[in-house]
Amino acid sequence: MLTSKERFLAACRNEEVDRPPVWIMRQAGRYLPEYMELRAKHSFLDFCKIPELAREVALQPLSRFELDASILFSDILVVPEAMGLTVDYPKGGPTLAPIVDDDSGLDSLQMPDVDDKLGYVGEALEAIRDGIGPDKALIGFAGAPYTLATYMVEGGGSKKISKLKLLAFQKPAFVDCLLDMLTDVVIDYLKMQIRHGADVVQVFDTWAGELAPVDFARFELPRIKRIVEAIKPLGVPIIYFVNGVAGLLDLLPQTKADVLGVDWKISIGEFRKRVGDNFAVQGNLDPLELYGDTGRIRQRVREIHRESGGKGHIFNLGHGVTPKTPIAGVEAFVDEVLKLGDK
Amino acid sequence: MLTSKERFLAACRNEEVDRPPVWIMRQAGRYLPEYMELRAKHSFLDFCKIPELAREVALQPLSRFELDASILFSDILVVPEAMGLTVDYPKGGPTLAPIVDDDSGLDSLQMPDVDDKLGYVGEALEAIRDGIGPDKALIGFAGAPYTLATYMVEGGGSKKISKLKLLAFQKPAFVDCLLDMLTDVVIDYLKMQIRHGADVVQVFDTWAGELAPVDFARFELPRIKRIVEAIKPLGVPIIYFVNGVAGLLDLLPQTKADVLGVDWKISIGEFRKRVGDNFAVQGNLDPLELYGDTGRIRQRVREIHRESGGKGHIFNLGHGVTPKTPIAGVEAFVDEVLKLGDK
Repeated sequence: MLTSKERFLAACRNEEVDRPPVWIMRQAGRYLPEYMELRAKHSFLDFCKIPELAREVALQPLSRFELDASILFSDILVVPEAMGLTVDYPKGGPTLAPIVDDDSGLDSLQMPDVDDKLGYVGEALEAIRDGIGPDKALIGFAGAPYTLATYMVEGGGSKKISKLKLLAFQKPAFVDCLLDMLTDVVIDYLKMQIRHGADVVQVFDTWAGELAPVDFARFELPRIKRIVEAIKPLGVPIIYFVNGVAGLLDLLPQTKADVLGVDWKISIGEFRKRVGDNFAVQGNLDPLELYGDTGRIRQRVREIHRESGGKGHIFNLGHGVTPKTPIAGVEAFVDEVLKLGDK
Repeated sequence: MLTSKERFLAACRNEEVDRPPVWIMRQAGRYLPEYMELRAKHSFLDFCKIPELAREVALQPLSRFELDASILFSDILVVPEAMGLTVDYPKGGPTLAPIVDDDSGLDSLQMPDVDDKLGYVGEALEAIRDGIGPDKALIGFAGAPYTLATYMVEGGGSKKISKLKLLAFQKPAFVDCLLDMLTDVVIDYLKMQIRHGADVVQVFDTWAGELAPVDFARFELPRIKRIVEAIKPLGVPIIYFVNGVAGLLDLLPQTKADVLGVDWKISIGEFRKRVGDNFAVQGNLDPLELYGDTGRIRQRVREIHRESGGKGHIFNLGHGVTPKTPIAGVEAFVDEVLKLGDK
């Protein structure tokens, strides 16, 4: 009988295992009543910055569901904060100040000593490890350079997420410089997470799927390659997840990431066929399916398993679980994945 | 020398022509100072409902740029309005009332006589034809059922456009019924547009690309097939445009639309290879590229031409032109397409 960690790491190496390992993007979150209860007493930033709280929150979903991995409780925007920006989390979505959209903005950015500025993340990882024990996989993560830059040039999120792309077309040298700085910090940051016990790391690229392939190849792909090259020698698998990935399948293998994440907007069978046999894949049930009939959820789990081929597949949703998701939907999802290991 | 209309129709039939025909989604719009000037005196609804204004606005881009086609000036939400909803266009985006999200909402919808309720659209088409003359192509259009339903169940737009999808998972029979009603109206509406002179019709599916392929196949594909089957016997080409199309390429050929639209998030070469040789294609420059260097715009036009293979390609952006687009960018785009006909 494999431990969760053994199962998870073998699947990342694209090896055959007893059943696909399973975890859920944003699994520690607002759909859990116990999270909301704790959240009433603490801010989101407390959860990120106080290791004991990060541990408590990260462990909540594992008490409820038989998941194979825990993920660091944090936010991708701790990186811009460590570079000197002020990050806040009001109701309408995060805000970052000052806006970085010209060369003077670049000059004011700091290249942080991650052990110093982000030491609380290392402590959070160790606290979570202490809670989950040695047999579960522990996932670290960072935002991808293009995605982090999206927030930094706008001073927050926006509906269209278009300012960075405009700058890429209008001031490519500025964008290159910002992305290079972020790439350096992300590499340091992921290495630090690995030193503090992450078994796997995931790079979240929420917005690079808005780029035409030719622009993805120009602006983001070289940075992802550089991150993967830096992490590979450490022997820890790296997962690269782009939201809106379906148009980038010719380019994605060039990242050489061990695991390629796939959103729900393409079938995982087609995705696998197109990226080739050398990659493990992670995904890809539509998160909104969890609101529907549990019989249908179970059927979709079996279909995705069939389409994926099973080997080297990490079961997950195609994006983060949403705040109002019924617990019963999550239960059916996880339970049906566990059943794939029967017989 | 081909007329614009001959060139456009031949390209729709996937035939070789002297150069790709060119038009721009939302070409009559806010990026034009003359549009804004007229808009200061009239409401958006006036533009849609007063044929002489629709004509004036539709003709504006053709006075500036050597485009091959004019498109009906209208809005996809005139269809829900004709079915009995109240549609308004305040600053924050359209609102529709009452919300249609249950069976009693369905009961209150009217199946309109399109000649009666949407007669002003027929008149607008005739007025535009009168303005452009017989040698330009005239494009009619409608929203696709899933996209129209998205607005009707939410009472407007939303950031996530998720309510219709939730209903599809929770109350599939309701969603089926709403989509079937909309399909019937869209067919009647497009037929009426053809009677009033549309040379080509386009079905805009802004939101169906948010569906997993399995759900697209279940909810939207059968409706698109039915629309295409109803229009084909009239001998007028039909263009089907889905935003976020890259994950649906295995299914798209089943629509049997003459022309398949392609957004900017996949290369047009890959798109063509995947949908096969039996379709003309339309697209696909990123609209935001028009904000950048004109040399780069011209280069991208030549690249897209090379990737598309030229034959059966209608040049366009991958989505509508945005309100702040510089005129110089549009000029460079159109001019470079015209140059493809040299030598």
